[in-house]
Amino acid sequence: MTPLLPAFDDVLAAAARIAPHANRTPVLRSRSLDALAGAELHFKCEHVQRIGAFKFRGACNAVQSLDDETAARGVVTHSSGNHGAALALAARERGIPAHVVVPDGANAVKLAAIEAYGATVHRCAATQAAREAAAARILADTGATLVHPYADPRVIAGQGTAALELLSETGPLDALVTPLGGGGLTCGSALVAAARGGATVYGAEPAGAPDAYESLRQGRHVTDLVPDTVCDGLRATVGAPNLALMRQLGVQALLASDEEVVAAMRLLWSRLKQVVEPSAAIALAVVLNNPAHFAGKRVGLILSGGNVDLDALPF
Amino acid sequence: MTPLLPAFDDVLAAAARIAPHANRTPVLRSRSLDALAGAELHFKCEHVQRIGAFKFRGACNAVQSLDDETAARGVVTHSSGNHGAALALAARERGIPAHVVVPDGANAVKLAAIEAYGATVHRCAATQAAREAAAARILADTGATLVHPYADPRVIAGQGTAALELLSETGPLDALVTPLGGGGLTCGSALVAAARGGATVYGAEPAGAPDAYESLRQGRHVTDLVPDTVCDGLRATVGAPNLALMRQLGVQALLASDEEVVAAMRLLWSRLKQVVEPSAAIALAVVLNNPAHFAGKRVGLILSGGNVDLDALPF
Repeated sequence: MTPLLPAFDDVLAAAARIAPHANRTPVLRSRSLDALAGAELHFKCEHVQRIGAFKFRGACNAVQSLDDETAARGVVTHSSGNHGAALALAARERGIPAHVVVPDGANAVKLAAIEAYGATVHRCAATQAAREAAAARILADTGATLVHPYADPRVIAGQGTAALELLSETGPLDALVTPLGGGGLTCGSALVAAARGGATVYGAEPAGAPDAYESLRQGRHVTDLVPDTVCDGLRATVGAPNLALMRQLGVQALLASDEEVVAAMRLLWSRLKQVVEPSAAIALAVVLNNPAHFAGKRVGLILSGGNVDLDALPF
Repeated sequence: MTPLLPAFDDVLAAAARIAPHANRTPVLRSRSLDALAGAELHFKCEHVQRIGAFKFRGACNAVQSLDDETAARGVVTHSSGNHGAALALAARERGIPAHVVVPDGANAVKLAAIEAYGATVHRCAATQAAREAAAARILADTGATLVHPYADPRVIAGQGTAALELLSETGPLDALVTPLGGGGLTCGSALVAAARGGATVYGAEPAGAPDAYESLRQGRHVTDLVPDTVCDGLRATVGAPNLALMRQLGVQALLASDEEVVAAMRLLWSRLKQVVEPSAAIALAVVLNNPAHFAGKRVGLILSGGNVDLDALPF
């Protein structure tokens, strides 16, 4: 068994493990977006990571961590999209089977990617319970290893490698903003920020799926919210280990409405010239709607993914 | 007077002159686009250059080359868009006036940028003759300096700095593909390729505006074609000094249809996650429609700009 919560050393180990497989993504700046935010913004471009999202980092770290005998039985996950594609590709690179449970209503572009990378797709109803039941069934049938999309410590450690690269390029930052869904990216980033300069870490969460925000505010794990947001990558409920790590590391959650997310997405397309998905644009949205937190600061933002359907843009 | 044709040393001087002003843009790769092309593609991201296009390099070099007294009288140009915005910004940074002659029917996004950077806009009919007459009138009135969008040797040298950065990052390439309109970027790139490793340089020109292609084929300067292409940045007629330099350096022109350009643009948006304009996507279009030239090669492509109207996409 891997330990419940990863530490900064696990992020360093992940960085070495995934280096032959993952892209080192660029960091972009924009004078016009800096002017708009009144802050110095550094955008880490994980939408040009393999599979078009940071999720490849965590999936690759998990798959490459398995011993040969365990790996040969394959890997399983449930995912609305990017993690499924990431695990499919990571498994293909290791030559092992991948099974991905996909809830009905998933983004068609992401579903096509999962299939293109050679995973076996299992459809299920769009609830957390249905996802987990389907995954459990496959685990029992195959003896494969579950790679949870955000609660797995190997996944959290892998996601942290994006912030590690960002900080190695920018030097110390005042703040680090990551999209917040299940909490894998946010927690991995927080481990890195705590060890490397102490930037305040903010998780950007949709106002229509504010489970982590409410969990931090109410001091309990809020799991009964029904998500309603354009950010299809941020509909999952924050994981228990993720919430624990966020509390331990002082992560704050900030909300943005779908309207603010779409406006930020349009800015990133038109000013930064980057094709990012709503779930990525939310990082800029919270910086723009919280000037009191960010004005005059050096801010890192993780643009987490770019898998959008060009025929169904929200603007 | 500056000499008629620039040399490689002028590109090196331009690189030093513009370094405090221009972005050093990233080079991106994509495994899926490599597989599609059967080649190793290196994309130089000039759409994330200031003003969203490589044109800032040449305009900045020209403006920074002027002595103080000449500079104070201002600069003038005629441009369907990106060069106008580039000159406006370069002039604003030096604190001097800029006048931009804009033909009717110019891309609205590019026109808005020219105005936003503080230039005085002069509208004219959409012909080469009308553009040049309007510019001559302003020159006579103001004593300003004409900065031609592509025939000016300072502009050509400035545009070459993109290829210089690209080759310094990739090492030697077999081929270098640039969009080809007036010929500034193509010629600047060819000067660099000849001096640094000898990559074959290809100018990618719209099949609906094939004046450089026809000029090279027929051995005379073909100036009477009426452009009809989605590539609004490539409608200008190739310049006389540009054509001379292209011949001298062995540049080849390759054509792509608007349909091929739009398909390549969509690939760059969906696979490389980059917001590029049709005039940039044409570089990939000619690589994909000429496998005999590029298969198995190391190819640099300059993604020249990203100023598209998100409300009027061609796909």
